[in-house]
This record gives sequence, structure tokens and C-alpha cells, in this order.
Amino acid sequence: MLRLFSVSPPNLFVQSIKNPAFPFLLASKKLNTNVRLQVRGFSASSGSESSKLLFRQLFEKESSTFTYLLADVAHPEKPALLIDPVDKTVDRDLTLVKELGLKLIYAMNTHVHADHVTGTGLIKGKAPGVKSIISKASNSKADLLIEHGDKIYFGNLFLEVRATPGHTFGCVTYVTGDGPDQPQPRMAFTGDALMIRGCGRTDFQGGSSNQLYNSVHSQIFTLPKDTLVYPAHDYRGFTVSTVGEEMVYNPRLSKDEETFKNIMENLNLAYPKMIDVAVPANMVCGLQDLIKKPSEAVSS
Amino acid sequence: MLRLFSVSPPNLFVQSIKNPAFPFLLASKKLNTNVRLQVRGFSASSGSESSKLLFRQLFEKESSTFTYLLADVAHPEKPALLIDPVDKTVDRDLTLVKELGLKLIYAMNTHVHADHVTGTGLIKGKAPGVKSIISKASNSKADLLIEHGDKIYFGNLFLEVRATPGHTFGCVTYVTGDGPDQPQPRMAFTGDALMIRGCGRTDFQGGSSNQLYNSVHSQIFTLPKDTLVYPAHDYRGFTVSTVGEEMVYNPRLSKDEETFKNIMENLNLAYPKMIDVAVPANMVCGLQDLIKKPSEAVSS
Repeated sequence: MLRLFSVSPPNLFVQSIKNPAFPFLLASKKLNTNVRLQVRGFSASSGSESSKLLFRQLFEKESSTFTYLLADVAHPEKPALLIDPVDKTVDRDLTLVKELGLKLIYAMNTHVHADHVTGTGLIKGKAPGVKSIISKASNSKADLLIEHGDKIYFGNLFLEVRATPGHTFGCVTYVTGDGPDQPQPRMAFTGDALMIRGCGRTDFQGGSSNQLYNSVHSQIFTLPKDTLVYPAHDYRGFTVSTVGEEMVYNPRLSKDEETFKNIMENLNLAYPKMIDVAVPANMVCGLQDLIKKPSEAVSS
Repeated sequence: MLRLFSVSPPNLFVQSIKNPAFPFLLASKKLNTNVRLQVRGFSASSGSESSKLLFRQLFEKESSTFTYLLADVAHPEKPALLIDPVDKTVDRDLTLVKELGLKLIYAMNTHVHADHVTGTGLIKGKAPGVKSIISKASNSKADLLIEHGDKIYFGNLFLEVRATPGHTFGCVTYVTGDGPDQPQPRMAFTGDALMIRGCGRTDFQGGSSNQLYNSVHSQIFTLPKDTLVYPAHDYRGFTVSTVGEEMVYNPRLSKDEETFKNIMENLNLAYPKMIDVAVPANMVCGLQDLIKKPSEAVSS
């Protein structure tokens, strides 16, 4: 799954630099989850060979959504990214980015959320230069459409993209890099694929319980057991788990595939109350109103 | 402020062991915040000279309270403690403790909360052997009444007690130890003394804005700037800050003392809705109903 971005030709491991002074690199290679990539040489454009992760977990109470801020603060530019920002908390997030002296380069989603409107569109309006990211499989609009095996660099740190469909067909899990200068233990931003002692529903948006089971078991449960699991939501007040814990204590995904399928088919959940607002908005980066306005102006 | 606990005579640095197989030590020495104690020799009763912190931040949504779970997982017994548990989430917390294979030894509060009922009483009922801890200055009941300068050991890790009155007269901040085997950066569990970009009110429970200002500036802002600040509450979705950030960006405590006092005197906050239930309950470890029952039985 070697891929071209619209920027410049990639090589096997490290792809191009959009701004040589500011290495937000995207590297691409088919990912073998058993023999993970060893990317030990970073781009020469980096101002520093060392890296240091700044990490913040943020919470939006109404939808119980976690937003994650990551930055390489050893890099002179302190490049940063936000995973799963929420429209209602964009100002909070951007103020924090500013106070910490970070340069936000990416606003990315794990999937097309059905329970809240993404903040990526608003962020792009308020912080010009930030690129939005979502999976190509989501069939949504964003500046960068990523696929399984891609690497998203911020400074000398990077996130691996792992396709984990099943809650939606476009779900991905972002995993911090494997390598000597990358954070230990690794961190997996699992979206709604794997939640703490739970998982996302599989009855909407191209969901499939078989697919979700296989995604989690092949792409997340194969990570080191001490890998930290950071989901998109928690409804009971947990903030983090580990792969090892979920393999044993997840009441759904620790079961065999048939049992899991039966559990998921008998959840009897209500229709998602925000889905008809959130999904159309999130398919266009949270900017549905702005996009509608020109045609509304014509028709009025 | 050398102190005796009810257990056995202390020496200057390391106090007695209640159960030799299980070193939950309490050490006591007057704390000089400028020249912090260097306690490099741990008790010989410890099964291991190394230590490794397991840390979990937990959230109770109704009162926006954080509960913190800390354990030394390098120690054979995996001794653990809970800071600021909430009555409504005790079962969640104890299940997590069990799943992680920890031995809970302490359930402790930073102060007498006015917005929720502590979980310490329920925990003691459900997990016999757990000791409750609160400051002596709070005038509350608990198994161990701690004072400024005390050290609370769990395995080879410890928390320093720093008196930080002002929100209430009994508020303390628990700070992870200073030493080669202690977590870096340090972590300060500040209760309501210092919150992320805020602080607790000072108009009830013996509160004093002058005292709070001096507490935070002398006991928290003197810690290394990278010290992580973990408050008892957050209402905007932040989960952690640092001393350095709060010194610059806290809209109240970054100001001079007179300005701070003026801010606190003009908050115009409503009467705390839970105070009349929570404070009497928390003064007796959350067990007011159990304590009342015998007298009620007599009077009926």
C-alpha cells in the first residue's frame, strides 16, 4: 500500500517535507504488525535528533469525548497535533496550544463521529495552515487522506496509522512510533474501535461486528501489552487503559468472535441522537454550514 | 514538627512498619521546601530497592471530581492508594484495583470536600484493612491524621504532605517524592488549593484568600516548574497542568496578593449546593449514616 501524497514523491520510508524549516513529514509503507517498522533515521530537515513528547488529554463533557494534544517539544518548532477535537472546545484547545508555545500542524480524526461535530473545520478557520486529516476509507473531505501503514510525523515523533474498521468502515487507530526516540510505552489512540472495557457500536455507518473483532485482535491486541489505550470516549470516568488489560478484562473483546458478535447484536441501543447532525457535518470536516452558505445565498 | 503516629516510635526519617511483610511506612520530618529532603535509603522491609509508579486518573462526572490511583508495581505487594475517592464511584475504583492486581492500603483526602461525599468510608467497609487519611487540621475523623512534612509511603514510593490551607483550613497537597527512585517529573495532587487555571473558593469552611495565596506560592509554586499539577476537580475538560504553566497562566494566582484577594472577594458564587450534606459526611469519613444509626435506633 505504498502511496503518493499530493506533495512530492515519497521514498520507501520517509516522505517529503512541505516546508523545509518545519518537518511535518508523512511517511508511507505497508505495515506488518508482527514485524513493526524500525525507522531509526529521521529526516535531515529536523532541527534536532532528539524528541520529547508533550501529551495532554482533554475532555468534552456533553459527548464524553477525549481530545488529545501531542507535540514534539524537543523540536525547535514544537510541532503539535490534535486528535478528535470537538467543535465546542476548539477555543479551549487553541488557547492551550498557544500558551504551551506549540505550532499546531494537524487536526485529525480517528473516524467520522456520530455523537459530536468535529472541531477540525473550526480549527482550520482559526489557525490557518493547520491541515485536517482523516482516513481515505471514510469517504470524507480533509486536507490529507491517510491509509493503513502511513506515518504522520510531527517533528521527530510520528504516529502509525492502523486501519481498524468495524465501528465505521473508515475507523483508524493512531499508534505512537516504534523506535528508540519514540515514547515508551507506546500509545494507541483507538477512537471507538476499542474503548476502556468496551467498544463502539457496530449497527450504523457501515459497522460490522466481525470486522471490528478482527480489527482489534489483529491491529491493537498485537501491540505490546503495556501499550496505553486512549479511546475517543469514556462514559464511566476512566481515562486510560492498556492493551494487556483490555485483552483480559474487556467484557466484549476478550471473548471469542461468535460471542462478541452475539453481544453486539443484542445491545438494543437507542438511535444515536446526534447522528443526523454530526455525520453530515463530519463528512465535510465540520464545516457543513459554511459549505451550504453560498447555495443558500443563491436561493434566497 | 516531628510527630508520633500511634503505631510505633518514629526515627527522624523512616517510621515504623505496621506489617513487616507489607511496608506502608509513614515517615515524618519538618519540611523545608527550599531544601527538599533527600531520602535515599528506604526501609529494609521493602522487597525491592526499585520502584515503578502505576498511575490512573479517574473522573466522577456529576461533581467533576478526579480520583487518583497510585501504586508501586515494582514492589511484590503492589501497594496502592486512592486520593479523593467519591462515594458514587467506589465500586468502579475497587474493581480497577482488583483487576490491576493491586493491594489498596490507603484511601485519602486532600481536604473535607463540600461538593461530594468522600468514598473513604465505603472503601473501608468493602476493603477491610484500608486506612483512611486526612489532615489533622481538618478536625475530621480518619485512621491516620497527617500534618505538614509527613511522608506517606506505599512500597518504595512516597508522597510528601504539604499544608496548603486557604480553601479550607485543613487542605493539604500531596507531592510525589524527591529522590532517584521517585517519579520524574514530580506530581502534585493539589486538591482545591490550585486548580488548572483556577483555584477553590475561599468563602466557606475556614477559607482565607490571603492564606490560599501564601499556601500556593510557598508550597506549590516553589516546586520544579515541570511538576505535574493534578487537581481535585476540573470543569472545562483539562486533566493536568504544570507548576510552570500555572505560575504564568493561572488567571488568579499569577497575580499579586492584593489583586488575588480582590478577585476572590468578587466571585459572587452561589451557596455550595452539596455543602450541607457533604461536609458533615466527610468530617466522619463519609460514614455519617452508619454512625447515626445506633442513636436513631435508640430514639425510635
